[in-house]
Amino acid sequence: MRYVVIMAGGSGTRLWPLSRQGRPKQLLELFGGASLLRLAYDRVAGVVPPENILVCTGRAYADDVAAQIPELPEGNILGEPEGRDSLNAVAWSAAVVAGRDPEGVVAMVTADQVITPVDEFARSLRLAFEVAEARPRALVTLGVVPTSPHTGYGYLHRAEELDGFTGVHRVAQFKEKPSREVAQEYLATGEYWWNAGMFVWRAGTLLSQLDQLLPDTAAKVRAIVAEPERLDEIFPTLQKISVDYAVMEPASEGRTDAEVVSVGLSIDWRDVGGFVSLAELLATDADGNAVDGAVVTLDSTGCVLINAVGPRHVVSAIGLRDHLVVATPTATLVAPLADSERVKELVALVRTQRGDEFA
Amino acid sequence: MRYVVIMAGGSGTRLWPLSRQGRPKQLLELFGGASLLRLAYDRVAGVVPPENILVCTGRAYADDVAAQIPELPEGNILGEPEGRDSLNAVAWSAAVVAGRDPEGVVAMVTADQVITPVDEFARSLRLAFEVAEARPRALVTLGVVPTSPHTGYGYLHRAEELDGFTGVHRVAQFKEKPSREVAQEYLATGEYWWNAGMFVWRAGTLLSQLDQLLPDTAAKVRAIVAEPERLDEIFPTLQKISVDYAVMEPASEGRTDAEVVSVGLSIDWRDVGGFVSLAELLATDADGNAVDGAVVTLDSTGCVLINAVGPRHVVSAIGLRDHLVVATPTATLVAPLADSERVKELVALVRTQRGDEFA
Repeated sequence: MRYVVIMAGGSGTRLWPLSRQGRPKQLLELFGGASLLRLAYDRVAGVVPPENILVCTGRAYADDVAAQIPELPEGNILGEPEGRDSLNAVAWSAAVVAGRDPEGVVAMVTADQVITPVDEFARSLRLAFEVAEARPRALVTLGVVPTSPHTGYGYLHRAEELDGFTGVHRVAQFKEKPSREVAQEYLATGEYWWNAGMFVWRAGTLLSQLDQLLPDTAAKVRAIVAEPERLDEIFPTLQKISVDYAVMEPASEGRTDAEVVSVGLSIDWRDVGGFVSLAELLATDADGNAVDGAVVTLDSTGCVLINAVGPRHVVSAIGLRDHLVVATPTATLVAPLADSERVKELVALVRTQRGDEFA
Repeated sequence: MRYVVIMAGGSGTRLWPLSRQGRPKQLLELFGGASLLRLAYDRVAGVVPPENILVCTGRAYADDVAAQIPELPEGNILGEPEGRDSLNAVAWSAAVVAGRDPEGVVAMVTADQVITPVDEFARSLRLAFEVAEARPRALVTLGVVPTSPHTGYGYLHRAEELDGFTGVHRVAQFKEKPSREVAQEYLATGEYWWNAGMFVWRAGTLLSQLDQLLPDTAAKVRAIVAEPERLDEIFPTLQKISVDYAVMEPASEGRTDAEVVSVGLSIDWRDVGGFVSLAELLATDADGNAVDGAVVTLDSTGCVLINAVGPRHVVSAIGLRDHLVVATPTATLVAPLADSERVKELVALVRTQRGDEFA
């Protein structure tokens, strides 16, 4: 059977005050009322049935996840007692799926992006499932065919195409986030894909990789599945490490018995990493302002104006150029768009000066 | 007996969204928790006893006035059914005072300014009472000795000093708001004072002026005092006109039997007419931003940042220069300070696009 696990952890201060400690960006209902989480669910709902879709998230967000995806059966929300990096979400998910179905094949997908067209994504995901089903030792990673020399993503260097699977390549090497120059070279060669951070594998195969690379983690996630009541005791002791460092890179270097392959996605991939990328997804008014919610502007252009207080509030501007304005019930943020990437610094100040409850 | 009537009418959109239809600027508790109204009350509380202090305001604001001045006896709030310009507040007040005390002398004072030192104001107000008591036909206006060639005030041209009253002059002429050049001339001659819009006179004297100049108004305000239940019927029929046009100018031109004199106030007189003047009265942070309420800034200077949502909210800025940010529960406003005088235009847009309830 095929399973999909949506990874929706992380707090993410880069969209503060929209995203907050108790309200991570994946849960923000910004896109016509839908959240990134809901968009991620809708992307995979045509590929596997609802009972085979799980969401791995912070336990604090479990109720919000259930509210946003009422289709999700009870028990399909894996609530992490604390965030311990991506490997542990991946490892725990694999153990859960293997516990339900020893032959289960699982796709780990992210909820940080807006992806179009959805059909193309679904087609590629199905192809990745087919590869993982046909090749028992395959660790399939999804690669995005780059449309720009983006320096914010890791890349993967693809090698030869896999026999019988058009558009599926072996992975020669994973690459860290590159400099602008290097990213431009990557783009020019056509041999590099963005590392999407999405994976498909047999649950048993992932666990056997962990047996070889991180046996302590492998044992602990199996113990959690065997005795769920020990989750709070065991989970915080898991080694904090990313799935790329822990599994994908060693495996791509031949240090395990796995083969690392990648399915290329030709899609529009928009990571909502900050306000500038978020703005590209919002509606635009006649003056070229990206707006969300009740907003009134006078002689203002090139701004991003977000009213997340609600319909009983109005966000307004006079003579504003290229500024960000975000209003929520707990905070107002104003900055030139060029400074909007400095939100993390500001949140640290807010925490110090006003208290954690505002962060 | 001496009476003081504080005039606190008007809505004033120039401080929107701080001031609103239901919340005029005089009621905003911006100055260490005190409002302009409360400051006006405190200024006169040492001059006359509380039972002789009245507030003339819009009826809709009567409860807020009572809450901000609990010392005020019931019945000392004159609630206008609608705003009908300054003459009618003045005329009704005179009729009310004359009804209580035919010999009553009444000071009409405004609540639009922050005035320091308060002692100097009280001293001048007492002097004005003395003049009105000594000279039965005197209309005493308070003049402010100008400290700048302000173009936002009317001026009065003073003539000779009154015998026996140092610093009290006859008024030769009232002048409209001048151009910059004319204002500079006024300042250079030393013969012009700002028209403070505050007056002291015997209630009976003011009523007798009305008998001469606007007998219809005189009869109507007397009728309201005789039959208070007819307030709603009569008040809206009063001619809409300012006290300057209706009484002070004709009287200064010798068209009545009154003598117009002025007491000069050497005080710091700050009219809170807009955000720029408001900013001068707010606390300043280390980076030269004028701030009110919980505000956190990063690399921001020369801004005016007002958090009127409350302590459960934080207003924040990154890299902001010379901008105004105002947050209230119902609206957020952002503008370069240079554009902050255009609030009225914006409010008209807000009214059209979002509805009257936001204006």
